Amino acid sequence: MSDKEKKVSLVVVKRLPRYYRYLRELLSRGVSRVSSRELSLKMGVTASQIRQDLNCFGGFGQQGYGYNVEQLCQEIGTILGLDRGYKTIIIGAGNLGHALANHTNFAKRGFTLIGIFDSDPNVAGGEINGIKVRHADELADFVKEHNPEIAILAVPKAAVNRVANELVALGVRGLWNFSYTELSLPDSVAVENVHLSDSLMTLSYKFTNLDSGDLL
Amino acid sequence: MSDKEKKVSLVVVKRLPRYYRYLRELLSRGVSRVSSRELSLKMGVTASQIRQDLNCFGGFGQQGYGYNVEQLCQEIGTILGLDRGYKTIIIGAGNLGHALANHTNFAKRGFTLIGIFDSDPNVAGGEINGIKVRHADELADFVKEHNPEIAILAVPKAAVNRVANELVALGVRGLWNFSYTELSLPDSVAVENVHLSDSLMTLSYKFTNLDSGDLL
Repeated sequence: MSDKEKKVSLVVVKRLPRYYRYLRELLSRGVSRVSSRELSLKMGVTASQIRQDLNCFGGFGQQGYGYNVEQLCQEIGTILGLDRGYKTIIIGAGNLGHALANHTNFAKRGFTLIGIFDSDPNVAGGEINGIKVRHADELADFVKEHNPEIAILAVPKAAVNRVANELVALGVRGLWNFSYTELSLPDSVAVENVHLSDSLMTLSYKFTNLDSGDLL
Repeated sequence: MSDKEKKVSLVVVKRLPRYYRYLRELLSRGVSRVSSRELSLKMGVTASQIRQDLNCFGGFGQQGYGYNVEQLCQEIGTILGLDRGYKTIIIGAGNLGHALANHTNFAKRGFTLIGIFDSDPNVAGGEINGIKVRHADELADFVKEHNPEIAILAVPKAAVNRVANELVALGVRGLWNFSYTELSLPDSVAVENVHLSDSLMTLSYKFTNLDSGDLL
């Protein structure tokens, strides 16, 4: 695939994880071909939109024949970078850090957990999912030695900017931020925020408008 | 505000939680007026887009004067339904359920936690954030008696459809689903899915394209 073909519109990119998720589900059920109509019904996107989206990746579909699920899945995975493999650390071993450390799905997407850190001496020393929880004091040395690409930030809001800046200074270039606050970081760092309270507000809107038929 | 004015485009609605979050932050810092330019810089949306979005709510801005932060915040909160108050229960008291039960932000948005349920007898009987964890067997009676509007689903993927159907049959009409799977439910139920693995895939895409300048 040429560099040119790799440039996919951002609107399409935002749909890719959902396509990927659904195609993986089909694969796990042994389905090898899917039509744009079937995909469309499942995903709530028009069939023509799907054809248009997937044409960005070389058009694996054939008229009247559908898409090759495995091939399409693999291609979307490559564009998303899921085949690269990322050494990942979690900062914060509270309930959320625990929950995230236990998610086997992340390993399936190429995110290998190599370390967990917490500033609480009572928490450090324990183990989650076979990974030792280290004290935050060991973070700098660990990062220098093992060069993780991705850090998951599950620390309190008050600490997150300090922690993020430290990680970036140490060379970590991907942050998955659960800390309810926006980070101010250079463009050379990839940041993905999980704003749970935005999601909850969206639920509130949907609930409030249940009877008006004006749902998202 | 008339019913007609309340019909806001879905694209705008998706931006509302972010506006709300930022306006709350301004309020907490004692800022009472903000220009569309300031909002624009902070939110990464054009100033004209912001003016257009906020005009949907009766146009609180005045040329050269900016927006009244408190008034705008309140108005957006009303549209999102944050002033209604929702009795909320959590199903699943694992690490994720724990983390969610401890989030004080949810109470600030009008979601009052009234019950937590788990099918594990070793977990039931405990307490999280002052709320007793009940056994899943008590769920039906509890819902009939207390009529929660919202249920947070933090149960394993294999259990979620059964639990969701039971809740809906009992009259719960809002579900916040963390279970990595889509639910098939009638349109009379508001469902908001948190797909953490989609977010992680988006991070992977951003990371992979860090050097191409083709970021989301």
